[in-house]
Amino acid sequence: MPRIDPHRLLADLRELRTIGAQGRGVVRPAFSAADMDARRWLKRRYEEAGLETTIDGVGNVFGRARQPGTALLLGSHSDTQPTGGWLDGALGVIYALEVARALAADDSARTLAVDVVSFQDEESRFVGCLGSRSLTGTLTPEMEHGVADSRGVALADALSEAGLAGVPRLRLARERYAGFVEAHIEQGPHLEEARHRIGVVTGIVGMRSIRFVFRGQQNHGGTTMMARRRDASTALYEFAHRINAEFPKVAAERSVWTMGRVRVEPNAASIVPGYAELDLQFRDLSDAPLDAFEAVVARLVSEMNDRGGVTIEAIPTRAPIPPTLMDSALRAHIEAAAERHAPGHWQRMPSGAFHDAGIVSASLPSAMLFIPSIGGISHDFAEDSREEDIVLGCQVLADAAASILIEANSRG
Amino acid sequence: MPRIDPHRLLADLRELRTIGAQGRGVVRPAFSAADMDARRWLKRRYEEAGLETTIDGVGNVFGRARQPGTALLLGSHSDTQPTGGWLDGALGVIYALEVARALAADDSARTLAVDVVSFQDEESRFVGCLGSRSLTGTLTPEMEHGVADSRGVALADALSEAGLAGVPRLRLARERYAGFVEAHIEQGPHLEEARHRIGVVTGIVGMRSIRFVFRGQQNHGGTTMMARRRDASTALYEFAHRINAEFPKVAAERSVWTMGRVRVEPNAASIVPGYAELDLQFRDLSDAPLDAFEAVVARLVSEMNDRGGVTIEAIPTRAPIPPTLMDSALRAHIEAAAERHAPGHWQRMPSGAFHDAGIVSASLPSAMLFIPSIGGISHDFAEDSREEDIVLGCQVLADAAASILIEANSRG
Repeated sequence: MPRIDPHRLLADLRELRTIGAQGRGVVRPAFSAADMDARRWLKRRYEEAGLETTIDGVGNVFGRARQPGTALLLGSHSDTQPTGGWLDGALGVIYALEVARALAADDSARTLAVDVVSFQDEESRFVGCLGSRSLTGTLTPEMEHGVADSRGVALADALSEAGLAGVPRLRLARERYAGFVEAHIEQGPHLEEARHRIGVVTGIVGMRSIRFVFRGQQNHGGTTMMARRRDASTALYEFAHRINAEFPKVAAERSVWTMGRVRVEPNAASIVPGYAELDLQFRDLSDAPLDAFEAVVARLVSEMNDRGGVTIEAIPTRAPIPPTLMDSALRAHIEAAAERHAPGHWQRMPSGAFHDAGIVSASLPSAMLFIPSIGGISHDFAEDSREEDIVLGCQVLADAAASILIEANSRG
Repeated sequence: MPRIDPHRLLADLRELRTIGAQGRGVVRPAFSAADMDARRWLKRRYEEAGLETTIDGVGNVFGRARQPGTALLLGSHSDTQPTGGWLDGALGVIYALEVARALAADDSARTLAVDVVSFQDEESRFVGCLGSRSLTGTLTPEMEHGVADSRGVALADALSEAGLAGVPRLRLARERYAGFVEAHIEQGPHLEEARHRIGVVTGIVGMRSIRFVFRGQQNHGGTTMMARRRDASTALYEFAHRINAEFPKVAAERSVWTMGRVRVEPNAASIVPGYAELDLQFRDLSDAPLDAFEAVVARLVSEMNDRGGVTIEAIPTRAPIPPTLMDSALRAHIEAAAERHAPGHWQRMPSGAFHDAGIVSASLPSAMLFIPSIGGISHDFAEDSREEDIVLGCQVLADAAASILIEANSRG
């Protein structure tokens, strides 16, 4: 089986970390100067590894193996959150590069084709998973039309600025691949707490998002009697509390829901608010609990609207993300490799965060592996993982990649 | 009995409305150029009415009658909210002027002393009721030290800019007065709905204000299981809903409470909030329900803190305002005058909003009368009252002032 080079792996991760470094963190949002520098640096590294490499019209860095036969696609994304950590997507991108190099250097694996990719804008500066959507042909013109970032910069201008206007966009040649595997940090505390070193992802949770708009009547908080108030905030507090009381009754084991954004107008202590907004997101690995949550929401909205006074309107805030199961055949290869290198210290687990693999899985069999996040921290300058876990994860991926490709090519 | 001049009254109200006019509204915050223009205009009007007039070191416009004997103080404030209506405090200021003129022109009342005042900054640009606090000697150096408005302008600089630095501040000569009467628009819908034209204020409600700070742990809304969350927003929704469920059980008829300000950090739909704030204000005409509300708050805070997870801290956000009863002898004169001019169309009522009379009442017997607000609207460009109600209110005040002064001086 191929052996990865831990020093080369860590050296490349550390070099990539310097591009856009700020303190212990990395600031490399999609299409920023640092992001494009990192993509050009990756292109050189991919070429040094013998891959035919292109930066396509949305900024995806794509390295194609010269070996014939069925290939495996490996990778993740190298863009970061506005104040991101050094590993997030970068880990899976450098793993892919190192696995391609390790297989090419191994007598029993040098004929196997590993393509590697760094997707663009997974972190949603403009369009979440822009790169993987584009590569898999699910990015519609409507999704990019008129899109701007939170500071008002248009996607079209960012593409121009990055020198990508008019550059062709790659499309995935599905028939070439046995599948796609993405490695990533866990971004949660479960592996660390269980003292497990590898997580094999069973699926990526689906998510639905609803914004509730409460409309009442703004009034003076001293002169307006309780009986005649139509207080948007009172309705919001009751509604949110009832969601938190009712959801556990229909939740599955892995269900989560969050109401982390509130807006109250005019938000003054002595004024009865006439307008308020509440955002609700709920996630699960299967549709059934998501459907049950939606039914609870519909019942509560209807009950409270029947009462009169404040009205509640429910507005879906983005297209639902369906739950995605990972491919069981690919998972079996990763599980076998994990058991070989970390016997008894790996687990199956869902991913609560979304990933490019969730997009690619609609086009190719896909799978993911996680390594532990120290303290469960991610999307933060403090994000980190233990060196021995970083090295182990890459070796597991290399073993899994080799066995997936050997099996796929023996069938073909 | 003296007769007011409706045309002169309305003409002066309309002329004052032009100073700082914006559309149908008035923008005349304390110490602004428009506010000081209005005060200088008032000083000229007071002098034309034969009053010895001063603008004192905090901007109070004070007109002293030349008649000997026990006097009555009438007035309100001429500063406005940042986007104010034309009547709010201006009504009571021009009423005072017109009553002084009407009594001086009446054979049976020309010997009666009516002093008139326009207090400064009732609307809390810097210190709520700054002018009446200063006049009654309850403005401490600590209350003005380092105070700035919401845009960071220091009170000391605003005083300088207005030409008031070093100008003496007047002190109320208590022994001179039978009392203080303030007329005001109702700022609520009750008179209009009851088809009543005069409200005789029984008391000004007291108010207590508490800010609740919720501290939990910020986390990723996808990867953090419900059981391990310490969600500050969940605690806030529950706490606010329980306040709204528990307060009615101990409320008095006139109790009101408002939770119109919320802050959630970082206020993003997909992030479990680690920090939140909720402001609670509660008001009543007597201390007993306010004490009962505080006991409910203490019990809920303690129950929820005992549970662990999110902690709740309760911080009083300003000095409590005690409930203030209006002087019954003064009220009787106003009630008699109201019954004379609007038989069966007046009522006794509390004031849910605070007024300068609440400050002056600690130094002098004080009373208030209200006229109806159209649609209950105030602190808004749309604020208005019917002309016949404006005229009636002033005539009732004139009659009450004359009878108060006749009785006071016959006793003396």
